Amino acid sequence: MTSDNRLFPADWQQAPRFQGMFSFMRLPISRDLSKADVAIVGAPFDLGVMHRPGARFGPRQIRIASAQIRQYPATAADLWGPFQTLRVLDYGDVDIVAAYIDENLERIRALLAPVYAAGVTPIVLGGDHTITLPALRAAAATHGPLSLLHFDAHPDYWPPPSPDRPYHHGTVYRAAEQEGLIDLQRSVQVGIRGTISMAIVEECRAAGFHLITADEFAAQGIAATLEQIRGRVRGPIYLSLDIDSADPAFAPGTGTPEVAGLTSRELVHLVRGLRGLPIAGFDVVEVAPPYDHAEITALLAANLVYEFLEICAARPAS
Amino acid sequence: MTSDNRLFPADWQQAPRFQGMFSFMRLPISRDLSKADVAIVGAPFDLGVMHRPGARFGPRQIRIASAQIRQYPATAADLWGPFQTLRVLDYGDVDIVAAYIDENLERIRALLAPVYAAGVTPIVLGGDHTITLPALRAAAATHGPLSLLHFDAHPDYWPPPSPDRPYHHGTVYRAAEQEGLIDLQRSVQVGIRGTISMAIVEECRAAGFHLITADEFAAQGIAATLEQIRGRVRGPIYLSLDIDSADPAFAPGTGTPEVAGLTSRELVHLVRGLRGLPIAGFDVVEVAPPYDHAEITALLAANLVYEFLEICAARPAS
Amino acid sequence: MTSDNRLFPADWQQAPRFQGMFSFMRLPISRDLSKADVAIVGAPFDLGVMHRPGARFGPRQIRIASAQIRQYPATAADLWGPFQTLRVLDYGDVDIVAAYIDENLERIRALLAPVYAAGVTPIVLGGDHTITLPALRAAAATHGPLSLLHFDAHPDYWPPPSPDRPYHHGTVYRAAEQEGLIDLQRSVQVGIRGTISMAIVEECRAAGFHLITADEFAAQGIAATLEQIRGRVRGPIYLSLDIDSADPAFAPGTGTPEVAGLTSRELVHLVRGLRGLPIAGFDVVEVAPPYDHAEITALLAANLVYEFLEICAARPAS
Amino acid sequence: MTSDNRLFPADWQQAPRFQGMFSFMRLPISRDLSKADVAIVGAPFDLGVMHRPGARFGPRQIRIASAQIRQYPATAADLWGPFQTLRVLDYGDVDIVAAYIDENLERIRALLAPVYAAGVTPIVLGGDHTITLPALRAAAATHGPLSLLHFDAHPDYWPPPSPDRPYHHGTVYRAAEQEGLIDLQRSVQVGIRGTISMAIVEECRAAGFHLITADEFAAQGIAATLEQIRGRVRGPIYLSLDIDSADPAFAPGTGTPEVAGLTSRELVHLVRGLRGLPIAGFDVVEVAPPYDHAEITALLAANLVYEFLEICAARPAS
Amino acid sequence: MTSDNRLFPADWQQAPRFQGMFSFMRLPISRDLSKADVAIVGAPFDLGVMHRPGARFGPRQIRIASAQIRQYPATAADLWGPFQTLRVLDYGDVDIVAAYIDENLERIRALLAPVYAAGVTPIVLGGDHTITLPALRAAAATHGPLSLLHFDAHPDYWPPPSPDRPYHHGTVYRAAEQEGLIDLQRSVQVGIRGTISMAIVEECRAAGFHLITADEFAAQGIAATLEQIRGRVRGPIYLSLDIDSADPAFAPGTGTPEVAGLTSRELVHLVRGLRGLPIAGFDVVEVAPPYDHAEITALLAANLVYEFLEICAARPAS
Amino acid sequence: MTSDNRLFPADWQQAPRFQGMFSFMRLPISRDLSKADVAIVGAPFDLGVMHRPGARFGPRQIRIASAQIRQYPATAADLWGPFQTLRVLDYGDVDIVAAYIDENLERIRALLAPVYAAGVTPIVLGGDHTITLPALRAAAATHGPLSLLHFDAHPDYWPPPSPDRPYHHGTVYRAAEQEGLIDLQRSVQVGIRGTISMAIVEECRAAGFHLITADEFAAQGIAATLEQIRGRVRGPIYLSLDIDSADPAFAPGTGTPEVAGLTSRELVHLVRGLRGLPIAGFDVVEVAPPYDHAEITALLAANLVYEFLEICAARPAS
Repeated sequence: MTSDNRLFPADWQQAPRFQGMFSFMRLPISRDLSKADVAIVGAPFDLGVMHRPGARFGPRQIRIASAQIRQYPATAADLWGPFQTLRVLDYGDVDIVAAYIDENLERIRALLAPVYAAGVTPIVLGGDHTITLPALRAAAATHGPLSLLHFDAHPDYWPPPSPDRPYHHGTVYRAAEQEGLIDLQRSVQVGIRGTISMAIVEECRAAGFHLITADEFAAQGIAATLEQIRGRVRGPIYLSLDIDSADPAFAPGTGTPEVAGLTSRELVHLVRGLRGLPIAGFDVVEVAPPYDHAEITALLAANLVYEFLEICAARPAS
Repeated sequence: MTSDNRLFPADWQQAPRFQGMFSFMRLPISRDLSKADVAIVGAPFDLGVMHRPGARFGPRQIRIASAQIRQYPATAADLWGPFQTLRVLDYGDVDIVAAYIDENLERIRALLAPVYAAGVTPIVLGGDHTITLPALRAAAATHGPLSLLHFDAHPDYWPPPSPDRPYHHGTVYRAAEQEGLIDLQRSVQVGIRGTISMAIVEECRAAGFHLITADEFAAQGIAATLEQIRGRVRGPIYLSLDIDSADPAFAPGTGTPEVAGLTSRELVHLVRGLRGLPIAGFDVVEVAPPYDHAEITALLAANLVYEFLEICAARPAS
Repeated sequence: MTSDNRLFPADWQQAPRFQGMFSFMRLPISRDLSKADVAIVGAPFDLGVMHRPGARFGPRQIRIASAQIRQYPATAADLWGPFQTLRVLDYGDVDIVAAYIDENLERIRALLAPVYAAGVTPIVLGGDHTITLPALRAAAATHGPLSLLHFDAHPDYWPPPSPDRPYHHGTVYRAAEQEGLIDLQRSVQVGIRGTISMAIVEECRAAGFHLITADEFAAQGIAATLEQIRGRVRGPIYLSLDIDSADPAFAPGTGTPEVAGLTSRELVHLVRGLRGLPIAGFDVVEVAPPYDHAEITALLAANLVYEFLEICAARPAS
Repeated sequence: MTSDNRLFPADWQQAPRFQGMFSFMRLPISRDLSKADVAIVGAPFDLGVMHRPGARFGPRQIRIASAQIRQYPATAADLWGPFQTLRVLDYGDVDIVAAYIDENLERIRALLAPVYAAGVTPIVLGGDHTITLPALRAAAATHGPLSLLHFDAHPDYWPPPSPDRPYHHGTVYRAAEQEGLIDLQRSVQVGIRGTISMAIVEECRAAGFHLITADEFAAQGIAATLEQIRGRVRGPIYLSLDIDSADPAFAPGTGTPEVAGLTSRELVHLVRGLRGLPIAGFDVVEVAPPYDHAEITALLAANLVYEFLEICAARPAS
Repeated sequence: MTSDNRLFPADWQQAPRFQGMFSFMRLPISRDLSKADVAIVGAPFDLGVMHRPGARFGPRQIRIASAQIRQYPATAADLWGPFQTLRVLDYGDVDIVAAYIDENLERIRALLAPVYAAGVTPIVLGGDHTITLPALRAAAATHGPLSLLHFDAHPDYWPPPSPDRPYHHGTVYRAAEQEGLIDLQRSVQVGIRGTISMAIVEECRAAGFHLITADEFAAQGIAATLEQIRGRVRGPIYLSLDIDSADPAFAPGTGTPEVAGLTSRELVHLVRGLRGLPIAGFDVVEVAPPYDHAEITALLAANLVYEFLEICAARPAS
Repeated sequence: MTSDNRLFPADWQQAPRFQGMFSFMRLPISRDLSKADVAIVGAPFDLGVMHRPGARFGPRQIRIASAQIRQYPATAADLWGPFQTLRVLDYGDVDIVAAYIDENLERIRALLAPVYAAGVTPIVLGGDHTITLPALRAAAATHGPLSLLHFDAHPDYWPPPSPDRPYHHGTVYRAAEQEGLIDLQRSVQVGIRGTISMAIVEECRAAGFHLITADEFAAQGIAATLEQIRGRVRGPIYLSLDIDSADPAFAPGTGTPEVAGLTSRELVHLVRGLRGLPIAGFDVVEVAPPYDHAEITALLAANLVYEFLEICAARPAS
C-alpha cells in the first residue's frame, strides 16, 4: 500500500496464493485483540507433510465450508449460540514463505505469541501437524507447560530422522516434550491406530502419555474415554485435533488417512464432551482439500471448530 | 409430435434437459393409472435450494443407480419381492420450467393430484425439499391432513425470509402446517442436527412436532425410535426422506450436508421398520449428483425407494 | 451487527452461503465509490440456468483463482500493470435471495445503478447469463442504449417460453432489445455455434445483430474479427463474455458447454484486441465450479477479468 | 412380461445394468423398422478393451449428453434440422452378456443385420472398437464389401496375439479385411498417431489403406484431407469414428488416449465435410465415461452423432 | 530380452498396460519360491464383472496404497510386525490376455499352482471375484476341498446364465462347489445383503453354507460372528474377501457396491479375529480404482492384506 | 536388508511413500551405469512449489502413464524405435527427505553427478522446477556451462525473496546463472506468458536470454521457433520442460497453470524438431497428479520423455 491513492493487489511473492481473507463463518476480519476473546488463525503450511501434501489449502477450505454453519436469532438465552457471550474474530493467516520450514515455524509462533499474551484464545486452522509445535511454543510462553489433549490416528512422537532435520509432522510432540512445552503426565492421546504401531505406542506410554488407541476407544466408548480424559488433564490444556482421527470415509481429504478410525458422530461427541475444561489453545490440522470430495472433510473440520467455540463459551471463569 | 410420420426429439424449451425417461429399475414407463398401484414420479426441481444446487439431476441419477437393484425369479412365495403383488409404474417426470418457483410448485401438484385421486401411491424422486409442499397439497386433497414422518438433518420449519417470497427448501413444513396439510401433533421428525439448531428445534417441538434429534437417535437406537414413531403417527402418513439425514460419508451428494448423521445401515433399518404403517405418499429428496461420487448417494436413495416399495407391498388392506 | 460489542457471523438467511468476501486478486474490499475507477462485483445467481446449475459459485471461485494472477513491481512505466493508473476495488456481492428470480434481478440492478452513476466501471462476475439483463438496465440508465459486444456459444435471443415467465439465461438480449437497453445495429455476437442453431442465427441477423459464428471466426481469424467488431460498435459499449464461448476442453466448468468452440488463446487475444474501445461495462458469466476441474475454467475467467482491467486502463480519456 | 397384469423390472441377469432405454435426443424408442430411416443402436460392450475399460457405459452417457442438443421450430426450410426429412428412432441396446466376447459379437451382428436388411441406416453407439467388426459383418451382408472411413488415433490393424484369441479392439480391421468386409483400396484412415507406430503405419499402407497420420493431417488441413477422402472412397461407405481421434484435452473419457490429436473443431468440421457421401453405416466408439469429466467427451460424441444425422439427411437419393 | 546388450520395454501386447511391478509394501520382487513363506500375487483381471469394470487396476492401486503401511524397527519382540518371522515376496502379476475369459482363468490357476505346491501361501490381489475360482483350483490341487471363509455383499452362488457361458463374478462358488473345490458344510459367508436377495440366501443355506447376512452381523456383533466362524471352519481354509463387504462409504471404489454394509472398523476387527486359524490361501477382490476417491478403498484393501500377513505369521505350526 | 534371510518392506522413514520402483515404460530397473546410455531418474520433490503442491507424485504417475507407450517388433530398420540403438535404464528415484529443501537439492545433485560423469544422459522426472538447479549443477560439473533450452509458462528467473531463502521453483535460473551453470547468451526460453509478466520478460532479455513468449510463438509458428532455437544454442544443451508450457486444457495437472498456452500438438512437434541437437541432459517437471484428470497430463509428460529418447537416439556422435 503506497501513500498515494493507488490500490494494489496482494503481492504473490509476499503473500502466497493459497492464503487469503475468507473469514471463518464470515466473522469480522481484524487483528484488534482488544476486541476479541477468540481469534481464528490460519496457518496454511504443509512443508512438514511426509505423504500427500495440500494442507496449505486447509484454512481457506475450512473457512469456505464454515459458511454452511448456522447462527441465527433465537428466542431464549440458553438456546443462543456462543456468539452471545464470546467475541470471535478471524485473525487472518500467517504469512507463509516458500520452501523453508524453520522460517515458517518461527512466523507461526511470532503471530500467535501476542494473541496468547493478550489473553485471547487462538484456534489455529492448519496446515499440517507441524504447526502445532510453534503453536505450543507460543502457548507455553504464556501458560507454561500444557496438558496436551491430542486426537489423531498417529502419535506424532517419532524421533527425528536426523539431528539437523529435527522437524516434520511426525516429530512434533517429541520436540514439544524436549522443549518442555507439554507435560506428558497430564496428556492424553486418542484415536491412535494404523498397522503395527504398537512399538511407538509403547514408547509413548513409557514416556508418560495416556494413550487410547482407536481400538480401545471403540471398545470402551465415548463416556469412558471422556472420563479418562477428565481424570488426566490438569491446568491449561492444549487441544490438537488431527482430522485423520476420523475414518477416511468421514475425512478422505487428509494426507495420511488410516482405516478403522472414528466416525464423525464419535468425534463430534468427544469434542462436545470437553465443555467445561479449561482449554487454552486449539488447532485442527491436516485437512488436505485436494483429496477431499464434496467438501465433507472441510465441513467436518468447520463443525469441530464450531464445537471449539462452544467450549470457549462454556469455559469456567478463570 | 405432428400428425404426419415425421419424428422429432424432445424440445429443449418444453422439456428441460435434466429430465427424461430413464425408468426406475427399468420398470415400464406409463401414465395409465388404471394399471398401477404405485407410481414413481420424478420432480427434477432445485430452484428452492439455498446452498449447493444440482438436485434437479436427482431423479435421473436415482433411476440410473436403481439399475443395480436386483429382482429375479425366486422359488418360494415369501421370498418374492414386492413386484409379485404390487403393480409399479415409472410415471415419468414433472415438466419443469426454468427460473420460476410458483409455476413449478403448481405443476408438481397438478401432476400428483390425479395420481392420489386414482388411489395410486406416488413415490416422488426429488428434486429439492421444496417439492414436498406441492406433494402434500396433492396428498391432502385426497387424504386430508396427514401425519408427517420426516427423516432429515434439518427441520425445514423456518419462517420465510419475506412474506412475498414464502417458499424455499427450508420453509416447507411451516407452509404445510399453515395450509392445514399436515397435523403436527401426529408428526415425527428424525435426524435433526447441525450447529446450534436448538432454537428451531424448540420451536418445532412447541408447535407440536415429535422431534428426535440425531443425537437422541444415536442414544436411543433404532428400536426405540421406531416405537416412538408408531406411537405418534395416526391416519394416513406422508413419509418424506431427505437424503441428508444420512451422514456426508454415506451421502456426500446433497446440497447441505451435516456431519454426525445417520449411517446407511441405520437409515435402511429405520425405513424397513416402518412396514405395516399406512403410508399414503413418499418422497426422497435432495440427492444432488454433481456432489456425489461413485454414485453412492444415488444408490442409497434407490435402495430406500426399494424399501418404500416393500412398505407399499406390506401395507394393511384399507 | 448490534450496537454493543458482540460480534456475529453472517446470517445464512440474509447472506446465502455461496456468497462472500474473497476479494478479486485480493484487492481491497470496499463500497467507497469515491476511491475507485473500477469495481469488481459478484452476482452469485444461477436461477436462470436451464441445464447444469452451479454458477452461483462462480464469483467465489473466480476470486480464488485470481490469487494466481501476478502483479509485482516493475521498472519501467510501460511495463507496469493496470494498477498504476487504475483504482480497482472489490465491491463484494449482490445479496441474492433464494428461489425468486424477479427480486434478484432487481437487486442486481439496484446494486449496479449507483456504481454507473458514480462514473465507476463495474466488472460483474456471474452467475448465469440472466444477470446481464439487470446489468444492462443499470448501464443504460447512465449511458443510454449501448453497443453490445457479446462472446458466447449461444445468442441468448430466444423468445420467452411464456409471457408470464419472461426471463431465463437464454432470453436476455430479446428482453434487453425490447427495453431499449441495447442497439442491435451497433452490436456484435462472436462464437455462436451448436447444433442446428441456424434458425435463431438468422433471426438474430434479421433483428440487426452482426453475428459471427464460431465457424466463421475459425475461418477468418482473430484480426479480421477484431476489425469487424471495431467497424460495428459505436458509443458506450457493454462487453458480456460467456465462458462457454470457449471450447469445453478449455472451460468444462459451465452449464451448457458446446463443442468446437474457441481456444483460450483465441479468447484471450480477442479480448486483448479490444484495448482502446470505450467499454462502459463488463461481465464474465456462466462459470459453474461444480463442473470445473483443477480450477481451469475459473482461472480462464480470472485472466479475462484481468484483460478487462487492461482495457479499462487503456480506455481513451472521455 | 407375464400374461397377467403384474409388472416386473428388467432382469439384471438378462439385461446388464449398464444398458437401458435412455433415448438419444429423447427420440421415440421403437424397433419398428418400417417407421425409420435411421436407427440409433447402443452396443454397451467393452470386453475387447486392452487398457482402461468403461466404454460399456458409452451408449448411456452419449444418450444423456444428447439431451443438450437442440431441435426447435424454425421458420425456413433450409434452416430446419435433419428431423424434417429423416425418421430417426432410438432402437435401444444390444443385450450384452457377461464375460464372453464371441457371443456378444454375434449378438451385435444379429441385431444389426435386419436393420441393414430393412434399408435402415444404423448409427451404433459403442462400446469399444471391437463392436465395429460385427457391425461390418451386418453391413456387408447387405451392401457387400465397404469403403471404410476410419477416424482414430490407432489403425486397429494389428495381427491377433494368438490364432485362438482372434479379437480385441486392436485387431478389428485385420479381421474385417480377411473376411472380405472392407476393401482397403477404397478405405481411408485419419488421425493415426502415437509413439513409434510407423511400423504398423507402413504395414497398413502396404495392405492398401490410404492412411493420413495426425501429423499429416495437421500439416495439410481439413480441406485437403476431405479431398483425399472423397478421391478415395467409392460405393457404400462405413464410417467408424473412434473418439480417441480427438486429443485427450477434448476427449479425456476414453480407454487409450493419445496426445497431439485432433481438436473438436477439426473433428466436427471433418465430419461435416462428409455430407453428400453415400455412407451406409456409422459408429462412434470408445467413449469411456468413468474417465470423462463434466461430460465433455460424451457431449462431443453426441454432437458427432448429430452430424451423422445431417449426413444421412443430405445423402444422395440412391 | 535379447542376448545382446540392448534393453527393451515391456511389450504391450504380451503384458497388458494395467499390469506391472509396483511391489506390495515395496517388498522384494521375486519368483524364487524357496525364499518365501508368503507370495503376493496380482491378478489384474476384470472380464467377469457384470456392472462397473476397473478391478484390473486393483493390484496396481493396492500396491501403491500399501506404501503407506508402516514397518519400522521396534524394541521388543512382541511389538515386531510379521516380517520378523515371515518371508514375504511380491510375486508379480499374472500375465493377463485381452478379451478371453477361459485363457485367463487358466493362467491364474497355472501361476498359483506351483506356489501352493511349494508350500508358499499366496495372497491374491484381484481383479474381480472370478479370479477366486482358479485360485481355488490351485489351492485344492494341493490341499483338497477347502473350508471357504467368504466376506462379501453377495453370495456369488448364482447359477450361470447359460451352460456354455459358465463363468462370471457371480457364479464362482456354484462352480467351485460343483468341481469339489470347497466344502459348503465347512464354509461361512458374512456380509450378504442387498435388495431382495432372500431367495438366493435361502438357496445358499439349503446348499450347506453357514450364511450370516449383514443385518444378522449387525445384530449379533463381531465376537459372536467370530465364534460362529470358528465353530464352522475345519481343515485348510481359503479366505476370500470382496471389498464390497464394506459399505460404499468405506469402499466406494468397487463394481457393485451395496448400501448398509460393514464399516472398516468392523471389517478390520473381523479379519484380525481370525488369527490362529489355519488359512491356506487368501484373496482380496473387486477393488475398482476408477470409482475410488482419495485412494480410500485401495488403502482399506492394503490394510486387510497386512492383516492377512499377521494371520500368516500367527498360524499354528502345521 | 539384513544378512539373514528375512525380508523387510521399504522403511517409510528412509524412503518416502510417494517414491518407488514403477519403472518407466517398464524398462529394467538398475543402477549399473556401464549398461546404459540413458538413465531415467525420478526426483519426487515439491517443497519448492509456491502454489499447488503434488509434483512429488509426478515420477510415479509419469511412469504409470508410460505403460501406454508402445514399443513393438518392427520390420525395417528405420521404423525401429530408439531402443534398437539406445540402452535405457530406469535408475529409480532420489531418496527425498521430509521438510528440508537444502538437503534434498544436494541429494538430487549427488545422485546425478556420477551419471553425468559416466557419460550417461539422465532424463529427470520432476518434481517441481527447483530440481533443475541441482540437475544443472551435476551437468555443469561434467559439461561446463550449458546452453539452456527452456519450455515453460514462467521464466523462473525471479530474484529470491530473501538472501537466506535463496531457492524456490521460481528462482532456479537466477541461481543457475549466478553459479555459472548456464550461459544465458546461448539460452532460449519458449512459452512464457501470464498476466503482466512483461517486466520480468524484459529483465530476462536484458540478462541475455532469447525469450519467445507464448504469444510470439503463436504468431511465428513451430518452424520459425525451431530455427531461432537452432541459431542460438551452442555446445552441450540442457533441455528443461515445464509441463505448464502446455495450456491447462492439455495439462491441468500442474501447480501454476497459465491460460493461453501451447497445445500438446505444438509441444510434441517442438520437441520432435530438436532431433540432431547435442542435448546433454533433460528434465520434465511440474506434473502434479492430484490436479490431473484421466491421467492426461502424465501421459503428455510420458510422451515427451519418449521424444527425449528419440532425441538421444538421434544425437550426433560426439
